[in-house]
Amino acid sequence: VIAGPCSIESYAQFSETAQAVKKAGAAALRGGIFKMRTKADSFQGLGGEAFEIVKRVTQETGMPMVSEITDPRQVGALSEVVDAFQVGSRNMHNYELLKELGRQKKPVVLKRGFTAYLDEWISAAEYIEREGNSNIVFCERGIRTFERSTRNTLDLSAVPYIKQRCDFPILIDPSHATGVTELVPSMGLAAVAAGADGLLVEVHPRPENAASDGDQALDFEVFAKMMSSVEKILGALDRPIRTN
Amino acid sequence: VIAGPCSIESYAQFSETAQAVKKAGAAALRGGIFKMRTKADSFQGLGGEAFEIVKRVTQETGMPMVSEITDPRQVGALSEVVDAFQVGSRNMHNYELLKELGRQKKPVVLKRGFTAYLDEWISAAEYIEREGNSNIVFCERGIRTFERSTRNTLDLSAVPYIKQRCDFPILIDPSHATGVTELVPSMGLAAVAAGADGLLVEVHPRPENAASDGDQALDFEVFAKMMSSVEKILGALDRPIRTN
Amino acid sequence: VIAGPCSIESYAQFSETAQAVKKAGAAALRGGIFKMRTKADSFQGLGGEAFEIVKRVTQETGMPMVSEITDPRQVGALSEVVDAFQVGSRNMHNYELLKELGRQKKPVVLKRGFTAYLDEWISAAEYIEREGNSNIVFCERGIRTFERSTRNTLDLSAVPYIKQRCDFPILIDPSHATGVTELVPSMGLAAVAAGADGLLVEVHPRPENAASDGDQALDFEVFAKMMSSVEKILGALDRPIRTN
Amino acid sequence: VIAGPCSIESYAQFSETAQAVKKAGAAALRGGIFKMRTKADSFQGLGGEAFEIVKRVTQETGMPMVSEITDPRQVGALSEVVDAFQVGSRNMHNYELLKELGRQKKPVVLKRGFTAYLDEWISAAEYIEREGNSNIVFCERGIRTFERSTRNTLDLSAVPYIKQRCDFPILIDPSHATGVTELVPSMGLAAVAAGADGLLVEVHPRPENAASDGDQALDFEVFAKMMSSVEKILGALDRPIRTN
Repeated sequence: VIAGPCSIESYAQFSETAQAVKKAGAAALRGGIFKMRTKADSFQGLGGEAFEIVKRVTQETGMPMVSEITDPRQVGALSEVVDAFQVGSRNMHNYELLKELGRQKKPVVLKRGFTAYLDEWISAAEYIEREGNSNIVFCERGIRTFERSTRNTLDLSAVPYIKQRCDFPILIDPSHATGVTELVPSMGLAAVAAGADGLLVEVHPRPENAASDGDQALDFEVFAKMMSSVEKILGALDRPIRTN
Repeated sequence: VIAGPCSIESYAQFSETAQAVKKAGAAALRGGIFKMRTKADSFQGLGGEAFEIVKRVTQETGMPMVSEITDPRQVGALSEVVDAFQVGSRNMHNYELLKELGRQKKPVVLKRGFTAYLDEWISAAEYIEREGNSNIVFCERGIRTFERSTRNTLDLSAVPYIKQRCDFPILIDPSHATGVTELVPSMGLAAVAAGADGLLVEVHPRPENAASDGDQALDFEVFAKMMSSVEKILGALDRPIRTN
Repeated sequence: VIAGPCSIESYAQFSETAQAVKKAGAAALRGGIFKMRTKADSFQGLGGEAFEIVKRVTQETGMPMVSEITDPRQVGALSEVVDAFQVGSRNMHNYELLKELGRQKKPVVLKRGFTAYLDEWISAAEYIEREGNSNIVFCERGIRTFERSTRNTLDLSAVPYIKQRCDFPILIDPSHATGVTELVPSMGLAAVAAGADGLLVEVHPRPENAASDGDQALDFEVFAKMMSSVEKILGALDRPIRTN
Repeated sequence: VIAGPCSIESYAQFSETAQAVKKAGAAALRGGIFKMRTKADSFQGLGGEAFEIVKRVTQETGMPMVSEITDPRQVGALSEVVDAFQVGSRNMHNYELLKELGRQKKPVVLKRGFTAYLDEWISAAEYIEREGNSNIVFCERGIRTFERSTRNTLDLSAVPYIKQRCDFPILIDPSHATGVTELVPSMGLAAVAAGADGLLVEVHPRPENAASDGDQALDFEVFAKMMSSVEKILGALDRPIRTN
């Protein structure tokens, strides 16, 4: 389980969240440095200013860090603070970026394009692998459908579909998939029961004050409760939980 | 868990299936008598000829029977052999049929239209309830999306969404939702973990010979294995399984 | 071109609309008697009360009348007031209704289900034709997609697709397809240029006061202006306009 | 009207096509140099090798050239051979690329993401405009929907929707929108009638031998015939055609 805020806003916010998700059993941290936002005038992440925050928090908690890359020219700088690169849904088809990530060695969390066919997603992974990097983790985060009550529709059939075709692990991001805090825990449990290798969850100390995507973030209490049910399901199915 | 073949083909086929799903822990039987088929020249179900088969098999197994109704004029005749009516996905918007079912007393399993908004589905239930019948069970069976590798996309967020708004139970049909046998068991387990009250599963003695929808039916062995995992998850979450 | 209000509300409203659309060049009238509404407590049409209104208005204008049928048991009564039956989008998969319409002789305007594959639509027409009625007119009215700014997405490729496979004429309903008055005329012209055989348009004397779907109805002036452009395009392409 | 092959394959192929589309009335040339392909092992365009071909053909025909850019690092080199940059559907959300294009002066043809909301598309244009370049041309090329008979569904309501909100011109690409040669001309005419400012059409001397997307390219004869009908419709609507 990888958890953390949508955007890194300050040392206090990121540090508090990191301690809480570690205590609840998360194995790695997530947090946006460079954000992809639909509107040019929305908050775009702290960018380079977040680097020092990330270094301090990962050192203090001993947890690895995953963050999104949005431009092939960021590889060098971001490499110094993250342990794995995340390719966001909007960039799954950005093949120049994928090729650049294939030429370095850190793991790549490849989110599914919100409108990508399952087979296009597998093909996108091949762009990375062809350049020499086989350290790829899929992450399903919901697809766009006609349904308007949820932000996206989580396509859990991706889990067995990918497992039958690839050796790469697959995570589920129930936060973006639903866009509705109340629906996140059920979808997290469903993902684990479907066989997902992990979850990518947005957690924020005070979701109502988040600089981005507060509507889908869990607070610490709900996250801890979900983690406890996740452990029970894994126990029942004889699949051990990894904490790092 | 309600299980059985897509279509009732013969006494032997239905009886064998009923015994097998009973042994694996199913609480009720399903089986098509009148079928909704896209093509006018496809097999349309045995119709009235299936009535005697259903009577014998429900008596022998002591299990209740659910079957689809496709025309308001079938209510009388079907009432004599089924314990609950199923409204198929294509008829969720058939309000004249819903009103007719609201005027009788048996439970109605209301499948979600494969392109219905969640709120339209809730509104469809109101057509039944307004006429006096509150014995309604929702059943999500996948929605139409751009994805072409699966027949439909299972929208599991329906489970918590409906539970937060209605008191009616909700089932998941992982067979139609995926249309691919290999994906059915994972989606069944996911549904249970998401909080669904039950499953509606297509089971056939020899799926490869089925008169309809063989590509999504489970054989007896796979069904029994899935049931065993369902029980484990329910146990872990402290939710007891009902066997009738 | 078939035009008229979504629902028939009164003699005055229907008569005024009929005169206006006739003057602008429409060949037939439309108007809802039995309405399919998502919510059980929405206005459901005047039902039988509208029969006398329809008789008077069709006599006064000499125009044929098309109206929706929602239940196979309405065939007899509706036959006396309509010249053609319309099967609404929600009933395209209601095969029992289609079979019943196949057993009578009046033309059937078969709307595409808002989530039906083009090939399912052709198959639905076969349900009617198999019972003996070949007087079928297709009508595309928009499909459900992820886009949320319009009510539906008009799929104009249906026009050449159907024309290459069937001999039945095809109409376009730009009103339901967009759900936005301002977008209707452009889509009407586009439909004609794409080769559609006609349009089905919602027109209302005062759209802002309509009992249903006022947001997508044209007023008389905009309708007349669209008709004039339609004639220009048909003229340019050497396709004559039929006025009855 | 901008026309040309999906990919530039050779001087002979591009030159022959350019002469033919010029004769039929096209105002500008299109042709892929760097291609976005789903599969890493598909033909990815000639890349830099195509530069000389483009220079010769634009000089010979005097026609301006539009080609796709797939990486912010290509701006300098591509600038020397193209008169306008095209941002492909897969890159509409590639905001780093959009910002880079906003910092140079050539026009940008911004294709709609095949799963982008209309309002996201407008927001993407703002990324370019904010950096100083207001020379933007929208291009709708079909969206992903449940329909499987066509490659995409052309959303023509984009034309009036954009025109009511922005001052930028809008083109329609009927080739990608349908993916089926037989459907292209009707959709081209529909686009013009809907008010589109132009078309972007794939034309190939011998579509059946094309290195990419041959299934949707027009041959010279069909293209010339479509152009002649386009002129008739524009004439009827009193909108002059621009030939450069």
